[in-house]
Amino acid sequence: MTRQQLIEQIKQKQSFLCVGLDTDIDKMPKSLKDIVKREYEEEELTFGMLLEFNTRIIDATAPYCVAYKPNLAFYEAYGMEGIAAFEGTIEYLQENYPDHMIIADAKRGDIGNTSKMYAKTFFEQYGVDALTVAPYMGEDSVTPFLGYDGKWVVLLALTSNKGSNDFQLTEDAKGERLFEKVLRTSQQWANDEQMMYVVGATQGKMFEDIRRIAPNHFLLVPGVGAQGGSLEEVCKYGMTTDCGLLVNSSRGIIYASQDKNFDKVAGEKAKELQEQMAAELAKINF
Amino acid sequence: MTRQQLIEQIKQKQSFLCVGLDTDIDKMPKSLKDIVKREYEEEELTFGMLLEFNTRIIDATAPYCVAYKPNLAFYEAYGMEGIAAFEGTIEYLQENYPDHMIIADAKRGDIGNTSKMYAKTFFEQYGVDALTVAPYMGEDSVTPFLGYDGKWVVLLALTSNKGSNDFQLTEDAKGERLFEKVLRTSQQWANDEQMMYVVGATQGKMFEDIRRIAPNHFLLVPGVGAQGGSLEEVCKYGMTTDCGLLVNSSRGIIYASQDKNFDKVAGEKAKELQEQMAAELAKINF
Repeated sequence: MTRQQLIEQIKQKQSFLCVGLDTDIDKMPKSLKDIVKREYEEEELTFGMLLEFNTRIIDATAPYCVAYKPNLAFYEAYGMEGIAAFEGTIEYLQENYPDHMIIADAKRGDIGNTSKMYAKTFFEQYGVDALTVAPYMGEDSVTPFLGYDGKWVVLLALTSNKGSNDFQLTEDAKGERLFEKVLRTSQQWANDEQMMYVVGATQGKMFEDIRRIAPNHFLLVPGVGAQGGSLEEVCKYGMTTDCGLLVNSSRGIIYASQDKNFDKVAGEKAKELQEQMAAELAKINF
Repeated sequence: MTRQQLIEQIKQKQSFLCVGLDTDIDKMPKSLKDIVKREYEEEELTFGMLLEFNTRIIDATAPYCVAYKPNLAFYEAYGMEGIAAFEGTIEYLQENYPDHMIIADAKRGDIGNTSKMYAKTFFEQYGVDALTVAPYMGEDSVTPFLGYDGKWVVLLALTSNKGSNDFQLTEDAKGERLFEKVLRTSQQWANDEQMMYVVGATQGKMFEDIRRIAPNHFLLVPGVGAQGGSLEEVCKYGMTTDCGLLVNSSRGIIYASQDKNFDKVAGEKAKELQEQMAAELAKINF
């Protein structure tokens, strides 16, 4: 998916919502288990639970979002059945919702020939549109993910967790913080058609600093809602004339209800966020 | 595996060699394919190639090394068959060589609840002894991997690739480099019985600086051989009275020959390194 296609989708749907598919069987409604038991063999119940949950959430939320972000940790935790469910989810999206961006949240990154293997896996084998990548190992750990047409690196810059204070905010001798150095340095590797940045929403004002360094890049923003960030603040300081934001919500949408109609409730939660986003987009006549 | 058990193994074998199982079908001897074709079904040839190669390499090198380090990127690249071969390799090691440490090289790290999922996957499901973890996201991305008895976090500190210059060497206002801050800060999270560090061997002298901050921790050292590091220099500046080193070699051992007897040649290469290591250990009467 190209930058222009993404912008078009945001315009059409009046939404820059990304739904995080952090799918955890322990957090699913019990009623789903009965349905899956009737439809799947005993030895693929885990696969069935994950895939059924995801496809129902996707069908309910698709009109209100432009991207889905499955986090690999949740699928790998269920072994082969989990990986198969991840694959199944990607295929379901590609067949039924080809205009939605698929971001594999895997936070990979290794020496050059190894990153190249990860790039093949995610971009060629699974065919996702984007992959989150960790910057610690520098240029040759990131560049193997570039150069795929219409594919994106989503580089960690400033994350939304407490531990982001440990190293990301460390100032160098010139007063530049590590996440700022990551933003600045990585722009020598790729432009804003190939790279986005993960920027947590916990401190809305930080977006001012980020926009000084990366005025046009799309930012993938976790931490709105469950982790305490405010959508209005993020937009005030982070939105560009092209929108420039993908705001992720996972738990607040996918686990909003434990009832039989959990998917309907997830859809309503996504719609609520979409309406707030439409109001923000209206402010810039987008 | 506890620190004491690891030290015992090093003493017994007079070796601190870790063999990296970066297993790539394109780099295997052609003759192996014929053997695998006779023994495996058509639909599991990839699985068969990976597993046969690994078990032969393991049988040939086990007397000369104390650890194996499969890199997940190589297995994930082959999809479900690759993951199955990774699992098969771990099981083979656990059954036949229970005294060898298994280090899953996956460079994971995410927000707390997500890292917890990765910890479950690697330590409970696969049951490996150690996992490489990336430090960028800080404390709460690393601590979920701790607290498993006899399991280790191998935290990236100073890697052996060119890109390590981009961020890891950045000095803060007090002159402390990022990798030094990672070494210092992470010691508040775990002691030297639970944590090791990845330190590349490309600059032997750097080990002096590292030992000032982490005098006792085991260091996992890639970059000896193929990437140009010298074993003698690493030992001169990095060895402790407990040895304190695991030196990894991948390509130099596992792809040393394209002949039918590739495993025998791999064993000889491992033995060469073991003998050099024994000479280094003799210098400290270990």
